[in-house]
Amino acid sequence: MELKVKENILAANDALATANRQLLQKHGVTSLNILGSPGSGKTSLLERLLPRLNLASGVIEGDLATAKDAERIRAAGAPVVQINTNGGCHLDARMINQVLPGFDLAGLDLLFIENVGNLVCPAGFDLGETAKIVVLSVAEGLDKPAKYPSTFLKAAVVIINKIDLLPFCGFSLDDLHREIETVNPQAQIFACCSREGAEDGLDKLVNWLEKHIK
Amino acid sequence: MELKVKENILAANDALATANRQLLQKHGVTSLNILGSPGSGKTSLLERLLPRLNLASGVIEGDLATAKDAERIRAAGAPVVQINTNGGCHLDARMINQVLPGFDLAGLDLLFIENVGNLVCPAGFDLGETAKIVVLSVAEGLDKPAKYPSTFLKAAVVIINKIDLLPFCGFSLDDLHREIETVNPQAQIFACCSREGAEDGLDKLVNWLEKHIK
Repeated sequence: MELKVKENILAANDALATANRQLLQKHGVTSLNILGSPGSGKTSLLERLLPRLNLASGVIEGDLATAKDAERIRAAGAPVVQINTNGGCHLDARMINQVLPGFDLAGLDLLFIENVGNLVCPAGFDLGETAKIVVLSVAEGLDKPAKYPSTFLKAAVVIINKIDLLPFCGFSLDDLHREIETVNPQAQIFACCSREGAEDGLDKLVNWLEKHIK
Repeated sequence: MELKVKENILAANDALATANRQLLQKHGVTSLNILGSPGSGKTSLLERLLPRLNLASGVIEGDLATAKDAERIRAAGAPVVQINTNGGCHLDARMINQVLPGFDLAGLDLLFIENVGNLVCPAGFDLGETAKIVVLSVAEGLDKPAKYPSTFLKAAVVIINKIDLLPFCGFSLDDLHREIETVNPQAQIFACCSREGAEDGLDKLVNWLEKHIK
């Protein structure tokens, strides 16, 4: 019975994800579902990225609790809606469906959906996004792609973050590239540092997003 | 119906957790359920801790995939069993129940259960452990206790790890202590660095474990 209920939940989710996808496509909005561990730097990355992107961007922030991330994104100048899952381990399509009317979709090029910090569950739920991005901090170690394959397999883009910490990690950027490519040879890989004041290396990612969106 | 099924799953889990607890208590084994984000340093911490502890210790390693962590623990000299959840986001009491016969419980003082790297789901499932420990890397940022309260609330011990990275984090150890204490004033807090070759600061934790166990 447990399996049957899980199937029903996923079928209901997929139906709403399709509705979200159609609504976003109708308005020409590309949406990116950002996955990653707690503290991989998803919000910091958006803080750095938003002012640099020549694209009208909105953000949905997903967290178990608090509106901390939405406050940071608002300060970065983008329209944002915070979703609190109240303990839930992932966003689902219904949550996104409920907050989409809060955005002026006709005026947006790009909608970032920052999922709950969790390298497992969010990958199992389609939100209606165009693509999934995984943010991985080098401080998490070299073995994460192999140990969390279901998430890395679904990523169109993997962003290696906090590369200023590489000297403390005992492996090179090339090593981590190889680990990601072993699990997902198709993923576009970018490396950057989202820490304030650091050289961020975001140019390539900004160019890639601007080239592939709109 | 979804809620009802969830209740049934948790009730079945609790029954097996009770059985695990009774079996461990019968043999005088203290068990610690170690929670934390992917890459918080749970396995590295065990690698450093096991050779220093004057307690007969075994380890259960939980991961979605690979036996990487069990191989590391075996190299550190402790009896270990790897559980692969095949995509599952947490360990449950049934999984522990199935592997406990693989240990010589009569000869153990302490059983570490390293859960799947996930700061959300594992906290919801009692495994029959004596207490929960949360490992938090400073590289994850200052806001994790407030953003993942359900996990931090259940911790008897919080281990702040990777303190060698503090100079790059924009906050102090005192700041992080305060954030943890705001969510869970009862938690014992230790700070250390599990990176190989670094000054680890594990003495206090070793002393505390040896004093409270046996």
